[in-house]
Amino acid sequence: MTEPERIEVDSIGPVAIPVDAYYGPQTARGIVNFPISGIPISHFPRFIKSLAYVKMAAARANVRLGGLDPGKGDVICRACEEIISGQHLGAFPLDVFQGGAGTSTNMNINEVIANRGLEILGLPRGDYAALHPNNDVNLSQSTNDVYPTAIRLAILLSHEQLGEALELLAGAFEAKASSFADILKLGRTQLQDAVPMTLGQEFGAYAITLREDVARLGEITSLFREVNLGGTAIGTGINTSSDYQAAAVDELRKVTGLPVVLAGNLIEACWDTGAFVLFSGMLKRTATKLSKICNDLRLLSSGPRGGLNEINLPALQPGSSIMPGKVNPVVPEVVNQVAFQIIGYDLTITLASEAGQLQLNVMEPVIAYNVLHSIELLTNAVNTLRTKCVMGISANPETCRKHLEASTAVATALTPAIGYERAADLAKQVLVTGKTIREILSEQDDLSEDLIAQTADLHMLVRPTPSKIAS
Amino acid sequence: MTEPERIEVDSIGPVAIPVDAYYGPQTARGIVNFPISGIPISHFPRFIKSLAYVKMAAARANVRLGGLDPGKGDVICRACEEIISGQHLGAFPLDVFQGGAGTSTNMNINEVIANRGLEILGLPRGDYAALHPNNDVNLSQSTNDVYPTAIRLAILLSHEQLGEALELLAGAFEAKASSFADILKLGRTQLQDAVPMTLGQEFGAYAITLREDVARLGEITSLFREVNLGGTAIGTGINTSSDYQAAAVDELRKVTGLPVVLAGNLIEACWDTGAFVLFSGMLKRTATKLSKICNDLRLLSSGPRGGLNEINLPALQPGSSIMPGKVNPVVPEVVNQVAFQIIGYDLTITLASEAGQLQLNVMEPVIAYNVLHSIELLTNAVNTLRTKCVMGISANPETCRKHLEASTAVATALTPAIGYERAADLAKQVLVTGKTIREILSEQDDLSEDLIAQTADLHMLVRPTPSKIAS
Amino acid sequence: MTEPERIEVDSIGPVAIPVDAYYGPQTARGIVNFPISGIPISHFPRFIKSLAYVKMAAARANVRLGGLDPGKGDVICRACEEIISGQHLGAFPLDVFQGGAGTSTNMNINEVIANRGLEILGLPRGDYAALHPNNDVNLSQSTNDVYPTAIRLAILLSHEQLGEALELLAGAFEAKASSFADILKLGRTQLQDAVPMTLGQEFGAYAITLREDVARLGEITSLFREVNLGGTAIGTGINTSSDYQAAAVDELRKVTGLPVVLAGNLIEACWDTGAFVLFSGMLKRTATKLSKICNDLRLLSSGPRGGLNEINLPALQPGSSIMPGKVNPVVPEVVNQVAFQIIGYDLTITLASEAGQLQLNVMEPVIAYNVLHSIELLTNAVNTLRTKCVMGISANPETCRKHLEASTAVATALTPAIGYERAADLAKQVLVTGKTIREILSEQDDLSEDLIAQTADLHMLVRPTPSKIAS
Amino acid sequence: MTEPERIEVDSIGPVAIPVDAYYGPQTARGIVNFPISGIPISHFPRFIKSLAYVKMAAARANVRLGGLDPGKGDVICRACEEIISGQHLGAFPLDVFQGGAGTSTNMNINEVIANRGLEILGLPRGDYAALHPNNDVNLSQSTNDVYPTAIRLAILLSHEQLGEALELLAGAFEAKASSFADILKLGRTQLQDAVPMTLGQEFGAYAITLREDVARLGEITSLFREVNLGGTAIGTGINTSSDYQAAAVDELRKVTGLPVVLAGNLIEACWDTGAFVLFSGMLKRTATKLSKICNDLRLLSSGPRGGLNEINLPALQPGSSIMPGKVNPVVPEVVNQVAFQIIGYDLTITLASEAGQLQLNVMEPVIAYNVLHSIELLTNAVNTLRTKCVMGISANPETCRKHLEASTAVATALTPAIGYERAADLAKQVLVTGKTIREILSEQDDLSEDLIAQTADLHMLVRPTPSKIAS
Repeated sequence: MTEPERIEVDSIGPVAIPVDAYYGPQTARGIVNFPISGIPISHFPRFIKSLAYVKMAAARANVRLGGLDPGKGDVICRACEEIISGQHLGAFPLDVFQGGAGTSTNMNINEVIANRGLEILGLPRGDYAALHPNNDVNLSQSTNDVYPTAIRLAILLSHEQLGEALELLAGAFEAKASSFADILKLGRTQLQDAVPMTLGQEFGAYAITLREDVARLGEITSLFREVNLGGTAIGTGINTSSDYQAAAVDELRKVTGLPVVLAGNLIEACWDTGAFVLFSGMLKRTATKLSKICNDLRLLSSGPRGGLNEINLPALQPGSSIMPGKVNPVVPEVVNQVAFQIIGYDLTITLASEAGQLQLNVMEPVIAYNVLHSIELLTNAVNTLRTKCVMGISANPETCRKHLEASTAVATALTPAIGYERAADLAKQVLVTGKTIREILSEQDDLSEDLIAQTADLHMLVRPTPSKIAS
Repeated sequence: MTEPERIEVDSIGPVAIPVDAYYGPQTARGIVNFPISGIPISHFPRFIKSLAYVKMAAARANVRLGGLDPGKGDVICRACEEIISGQHLGAFPLDVFQGGAGTSTNMNINEVIANRGLEILGLPRGDYAALHPNNDVNLSQSTNDVYPTAIRLAILLSHEQLGEALELLAGAFEAKASSFADILKLGRTQLQDAVPMTLGQEFGAYAITLREDVARLGEITSLFREVNLGGTAIGTGINTSSDYQAAAVDELRKVTGLPVVLAGNLIEACWDTGAFVLFSGMLKRTATKLSKICNDLRLLSSGPRGGLNEINLPALQPGSSIMPGKVNPVVPEVVNQVAFQIIGYDLTITLASEAGQLQLNVMEPVIAYNVLHSIELLTNAVNTLRTKCVMGISANPETCRKHLEASTAVATALTPAIGYERAADLAKQVLVTGKTIREILSEQDDLSEDLIAQTADLHMLVRPTPSKIAS
Repeated sequence: MTEPERIEVDSIGPVAIPVDAYYGPQTARGIVNFPISGIPISHFPRFIKSLAYVKMAAARANVRLGGLDPGKGDVICRACEEIISGQHLGAFPLDVFQGGAGTSTNMNINEVIANRGLEILGLPRGDYAALHPNNDVNLSQSTNDVYPTAIRLAILLSHEQLGEALELLAGAFEAKASSFADILKLGRTQLQDAVPMTLGQEFGAYAITLREDVARLGEITSLFREVNLGGTAIGTGINTSSDYQAAAVDELRKVTGLPVVLAGNLIEACWDTGAFVLFSGMLKRTATKLSKICNDLRLLSSGPRGGLNEINLPALQPGSSIMPGKVNPVVPEVVNQVAFQIIGYDLTITLASEAGQLQLNVMEPVIAYNVLHSIELLTNAVNTLRTKCVMGISANPETCRKHLEASTAVATALTPAIGYERAADLAKQVLVTGKTIREILSEQDDLSEDLIAQTADLHMLVRPTPSKIAS
Repeated sequence: MTEPERIEVDSIGPVAIPVDAYYGPQTARGIVNFPISGIPISHFPRFIKSLAYVKMAAARANVRLGGLDPGKGDVICRACEEIISGQHLGAFPLDVFQGGAGTSTNMNINEVIANRGLEILGLPRGDYAALHPNNDVNLSQSTNDVYPTAIRLAILLSHEQLGEALELLAGAFEAKASSFADILKLGRTQLQDAVPMTLGQEFGAYAITLREDVARLGEITSLFREVNLGGTAIGTGINTSSDYQAAAVDELRKVTGLPVVLAGNLIEACWDTGAFVLFSGMLKRTATKLSKICNDLRLLSSGPRGGLNEINLPALQPGSSIMPGKVNPVVPEVVNQVAFQIIGYDLTITLASEAGQLQLNVMEPVIAYNVLHSIELLTNAVNTLRTKCVMGISANPETCRKHLEASTAVATALTPAIGYERAADLAKQVLVTGKTIREILSEQDDLSEDLIAQTADLHMLVRPTPSKIAS
C-alpha cells in the first residue's frame, strides 16, 4: 500500500509527489537526488523562517514596484506568515546536504508558498497558472541571492540566544566568584604548584573571558547584516529593475525588524563567504575557551580522594554500574565534546569557503549546515553547563587551604618582605620536611608575628604588594 | 494534557519516565542532562544492533560460566534478538552527544533489555527484582568495555557497505574507461595544456585509485576486530572471573559471525582510540580522492560553451529559475560537500582522541557519532555519485580532439621522432598562428605522411615510444 | 678541535657555554633540551625586538619606582637598544619549539642583556654580581607576563606590513579592474555558463574583498594592544609593587610608540589565548580568499588552447623541460600552498589554545611560532602575488567575447525585453545549433535592430534593467 | 660591494647567478620568484639525497638503454654520489614553498649536477654543451615523475629513524613498567577515583600502544615503495622508450638498496597523493597518542603538593625566575606542542592533496615540506622524550598507595568477595569518614584477616578474580 501521489512536470520531465505535499516537482527531485545525511533542512526552523522572510520581502518589493499583481503578493505574504509562525515545517524534507548551491531549498520554499497559496485561493496543488513558484514567488530572485541572504538572517536570528546563553553563563561564574572571594588557594602553572590566589579570582576570570566573547560575537555577527538580495544570479542584478535591490532590502528590514543593508559590491557578495569563516572562527574561539574552562572544572573537581578535590560539581546521574558512589563530571565532558565538534565544523566551513569558484560559492549548503548546527550545539551546551553544572558548584575551602599551605607558594609570596634567599630557604624546608609553610614559619625565631599573620592575609598574597611595603 | 508517567528511583533519587517507555531512570536522566544536538543515537541502527550483540554475548558467557541464571539469560537473549532484528529503535532517544563516556547509552540498552524482558515475563516495567539492568543485564560488564566494543562492531557492520559502494563506483568508472578507450584528448597539468592521453586513461585512473582505497579500508578496518570486552572499568577485568574475557569474546564471535578477538593488553585497549584516528584518516583519504575526482568531473563538464565541455553529466534537475537551459553538476557538488564534512569530522575525532586521560577516553561518544556519520555520509555519497552521475556520463569526442589538436601537445609527442628543436618550432607555430598541429604538419614539405599519420595514432601519443622508434 | 667554552652554574648545576656567547646557562640548557625543529627563535627578528622592548620598559619602570639602580637600568636599556636595532640576532639560537611556556626564551634575553651589559661595563661574561639576569634584568617580571606581551608586540609590529601588502594587492586588482572595465565576458556559476558581466567587475570584486580583510585585520589586531605586563606568575602581580603595572605599561607605550594598555583582568589575561585564535581565524579567512582568487586566476588563464584562456599571467620561468612553450601559473600555485599552510597553522594554534590549564597556557611557544610564521608567509605571498603576477596580467578580450556569444547568457539577459519563453527558445537554439546568440538574433525577423544592438550594450547586460525598460 | 655574478640565458631570457654557484638560471629564477618562508629545501638533507638517487638511477638507465653517452653518464653519477654523500647542500637554496609542482627543485638538481659535472670535466659553469641540465641530466624525465619519486624516497629514508625512536621509547616505558610492576595505585576514569591498578600496568600500556604504532607506520610506509619514475609528464611515459620505466626503477633499487617498484597505473600515480594523506594520518595518530601520554605524565607528576605527585620527572632546567624550587615538565610540554604541529601539518597535507587537478597535483611541494618536517619533529620529540624524560622518571610509591587507600577503589574490588551491598556500604564509610579503606576494614568485626590481607594483594586487585573465588 503506497502513499497516493500526484504527477507534476518540470523542464526535465514528470515527477511523482505525495498528493498532500505542499512541495512540488523540484523538491521531489531534490529528495531523490540527495539521500545523504538523514538530517532535513527543517532541523533548523529559524532557517526556514528566514527563507520565508526573504520571500515575503521580495513579494512586497515586487508589488511596490509594480512587477507583481497585488492579489498574488497578498497570498504569497499570507503563506510566508504561516511559515514564519512555525507552521509547515514538515514541508521541508530536503537533506541539509545538497548540490546546486541551494537551488533545491529555494525551490522548496517557492513550491510550498505556491501550493499553500493555491490552497488559500481554493485551488488544487500544482495549478501554478494562478500562482507560480518561479514566475511569481521567485520573481526578481535567484537562488544565489535568496539563499545566502536567508543563511545570514538565520544566523542573526539564532545569534541572540547564543549571546544570552553566554552572558547568563558568565553571570553564573561571576556569582560563584563572589561566593568564593575569600577562599585562598594554590594557583598552578604547568600543573605545578605556583603562587597563591583565591578561588574567586579563578572563577571571576571565567566570567571575564566569556563576556569578552559575547562582545566579539556581537561585533562579528554584525557582518551578516550585509545581504546581497537583488544581486540575482551573479550579483549584476540581471533580470531585476534598477529600483528592486533597494526596495527588497527595505522590505526585508521591515518584515524582520533587523537592520539589514545591501552589500556594497554585489558581485563580490555573491561569491564571498568570508563572514562565515570569521564568524565560525569566533565560535571556535568560544568553543576553545569553554573546553579549557571545562577541563579546569574537571581537574579542580578530580578525586575526590586521588585528585585535587577543590570544588564539587553537582551529581546528575549515577557514574558507574560497578563502582559504588562514583559520580562523573558529565556536563563538562559533553561541553568538551561539543567544542571538538565545533572546531571540526569550522574546518568544514573553511574548506567549503575555499572551494568557491568564479562568481559563486556552490558549497554554501554545507556551510549553512555547519554554522547553524554550531550555533545550536553551542547554545545548548552553554545553557546545560550553566543550569546543570556551574550553578550547583560548591567549594572545599579546607582542601584549597591545605594545598596552599603544603606548597612553596606562600614562601614565594614572602619574597618582598624577607628577601629572595630567605624565601628560597623556607621553600626548600617545605619541600624537604613535608611540613606546611605555617609550621615552618612558626619555627623561625626572628620573624615577627605580624609577618606570619600576613601569610593568611588575602591582600598580601593575591595582589601586588602595596608600594610602601615593597620598597 | 501530559503524557502518563511512572516513577522509578536510582541512587540519585526518583525520576519520572513515560509510562510505556522501555527505558528506565538513567536513560530518563540522560535525556534531561544532554539536550544538545537533536540527533538521537537511534540515528545509527547498526550501533544499537551492536550494543545488543554485546549484551547477548555477555549474557551467554555469564550463563556458561555459572554467573547468571539460565532463565534470566534466556530472556535477555530474546530481548536482544528483537533489538538486533531492528525492533525498539524508538526506545533509544538519547542524544549522540553525552558526557560519561557512554554510560547513559549503556544504561539505556540495559534498561530496555530489562523492561522488555520483564514484559516477556509478564511483569510490569521497573520491577527489576526479576531482571535487573545492572545486576543481570550488565553483569560482568562496564560501560568502558561494552561501549567501545559496540562502536567497533558498528563500524565492522557498516564498513562492508562502504566497501561495496566504492567497489561499484570503481566499476562504473572502469566501464566508462572502457567506452572512452579510443577518445584522444589533451592531458593537462597545472590546468595548462600538456600532452596527449585518452579519456579512457583519465577515467581508468579513477577506478584504480578507488580500488586502492577499498583495499586500504579493508586492512585498516580489521583493526576493529580487537575488542576489550571483559576489561570492565579500566582493563584490569575487575569484578569478572578470570574465564570471562575469553568466554565473552567467544560468544561475541558466535552471535555476530564476525572474527573478533580479545585485545592483547586490556589496560591500553581501555583508553586507546588510535584505531578510530587511523580509520578516520583513511576515510579522509577517500573523501579527498572523491573530492578531487568530482572537481575533475566538474571541470571536464564545464561550459557547455565557456568551459572544457569534454564530457556531459546527466541532467538531474533544472539548474536555475532564471537561466533557461542551465543544468548544474549537482551530484559532484554534493560529494565535495560530503568530503569537506568528513575532513571536519576527522578533526573532531582527532581532538577527542587526544583528550583521553589516564585509564579512559571519556570522549568516545563524539568519536562514535563522527565516525559512524562519516561512514553513512560517504556510503550515501558514493552510491549517489555512481547511480546519479557516473553511470550516465557521456563524452564529447570532437571537443576532446579539438582541444588536443589546437594545442602544442602533439608537437611534444613528436619529439622522439623529429627532435626537440623541430618540435619546439612546430609548437611555436601552433601558438602563434592559431592553426592546429595537423594543419601545421601538412604544411611541412619534408615530413613523411607516415609520420603525420602517427599524430593520430593512439599508441604513439599516449604510451612510451617503442624502443626501436625511440632510438 | 672543539669550540672554547666557559662554565656557569645555575640551580640545577654547572653548564658549558661557548666562551663568546652572550647567552648564559639557562639558554644553554634550553638548546640541549629542545633539539626539535631546527628553526631558531631568531627566525623572527620582530619577536626578538619585542622582547627587548619589554625588558627596556620593565627596566625603566623599575628605575622610576626606585626598585632598580639607575646605573644598572641604563646599561640594560643600552643593551636593549642594540637588540632593538637588529644587533645580536645570533645570540638567540633556541628552537621555536620549547617547553616551559617560554621560560627559556625569557631567560635567553635576560642572559643576553646581562652579558652584553657586563661587556659594556668592561666586565667578563657570567660575572652576574654586577648585573644579574634574574635579579636585575628580569626584576618585577615573570615569563608569564613578559612572553605573552612580547608575542603581542611582535604581532602588532608585523601586522602593519601585512595590511600594507594586502592594500597594495587590492590596489593592483583595482587597477586591472579599471583597465578591464569594458571587456564583456561570460559570468559562470558552478563552472557552468551563466550570465554576462565584465572582466572589470570580476577583478573589482577581488579588490573589494581584500580591502574588507584589511579592515577586519585592523580591528582584530587591536585586541593585541591589551597586555598583561605586571601580572607576573599568574596575574596576581605577586612580587611587584602596586604601582608597577601601570608604570611598566606606560613605559612600554613610550619605548614602542604603540598604544598598548593593561588588560582589565590579569588573572584571565595570563591564561587566555583567545586573541590568537581569533586573529589566526582571520588570517585563515584571508588565506581562504586568496586561495579562491588564485584558483580563479588559474582557471581564467587555463589553456591556452584547451582551457578558458580569458587572461594571461606573466611568464616567470620555463614551465617544463619536456614540453616546449609551457608556462605555468607558478605564483598563484605558491599562494595556494601558503593558504593551505596557514589553515593548518590555525589548527595548531587552536589546539594549543585549547590546551591551556588553570592559570597558564604553557603552549604559547607553538602559538607564537605558528602565528608569526603565518604573518610572514602571508605577507610574502601577497607581495609576490602582486609584483610577480597580478601587475602583469593581461586580458584576451576576443576570447572573453567569444565565450559570451557562444553561450546562452545573452539570451537570459534579454528576458525582460522579450519575455522568458522567447528567451528560452533562443537559448535552446544557441545550444542546439552551435551558432552564437548574435547569429541567432540576426535571423529573427521580428526583433528590432535596436534590441539586437543592446546585446552588446554593457549597461543592459551587466546591471539591473532601468525601471522604465523593465516595466 | 656586490657578489660577482655570471649571466646565463634560458627560454625566458638572461639571468644573473652568483659566479661560484653550482646552480643555474632556473634555480636563480626560483629564488627570486619564491621568497616565501625563509626555509630552504636543504633543510631536508635526505630529500636532496633522494633527488640525487633518482638522477643517478635515470642516468644509469639511459646509458644502459643507449640513450645517454656513457661518459656523460659517468660524470652525472660522480656528481650524484657527492650529493648523496652530503656534499653541496648549500647549492640548494630554493624555498620549500614553490609553485610549479617542484619544477624549480628538479631544475636545481639538474643544474647542480650539470655544473659540478662540468667542473669535474674541467669546464666552466654554464658551458652546457658538454653536459646539459635538461638534455642530459633530465633525460627521459619530467618533474612530474622525478619529484614525487624523490619525496617517496626521502620518506623511506627518514622513516626508519622514526620507527627506531618509537621502538626505543616503547622500550624505555617497558623498562619503567618493569620497575613499577609492584606499585599499587589508584586507577582513574574521567579524572575520578576508580579502581586499583599498578603503576607498572599504566606504563606498560604506553609501551604497547607505541609498539602498535611502529607496526602500523611500517605497513603504511611500504606504500611509498611504489614510484612513478618513467611516467614523465602525465604518466603516459611520453618521450621515453618503452624499456625505460623498468630500467629506471631497477637502477633506483640498485643505487638506493630500497625495494622500490613501479606503480601499477602511472596515470593515476602521477596525480594521486593518497599515500601522503594516509601516512600523515598515521603520524597524526602517533602524535595524538604521544600527546595523551605526555598529558598523563604531566598529570601524574603534578604538584608536588597540590597535585597527584605519583611520579617525578627529571629536573632539566630551573622552572621559574620568581618561584624558588619550581621545576616544570618541559619535555612533555614540548612533545604536546609537536603533536599539535603535526596535527596541523596533516591538515595542510590533506588540503594540498584535495587540490590536485586532472593529471597532476601541483601542490606537492607543500606536501613534501609538511610530511618531511613532521617526521623530523616527531623523531626529535620522541628521542627527547625518551632521553630527557622517560628514562629518568621515578615513582612515589607511598603517594600512590595513599591515594588508593583513601579512595573507594578497594571497596569496589572486594565486591566479588563480600557482595555489592556490603562493598557499597564500606565505600560510603570511606567517603563520609575520611578514613582509609584499611582503617574501615579493621573496624569490621566479621571480616576475616585473610580477606583484609587480600586488599593488599596485587593479584586480587588488578586482575580478574580467579574463577573459584569469584563463584
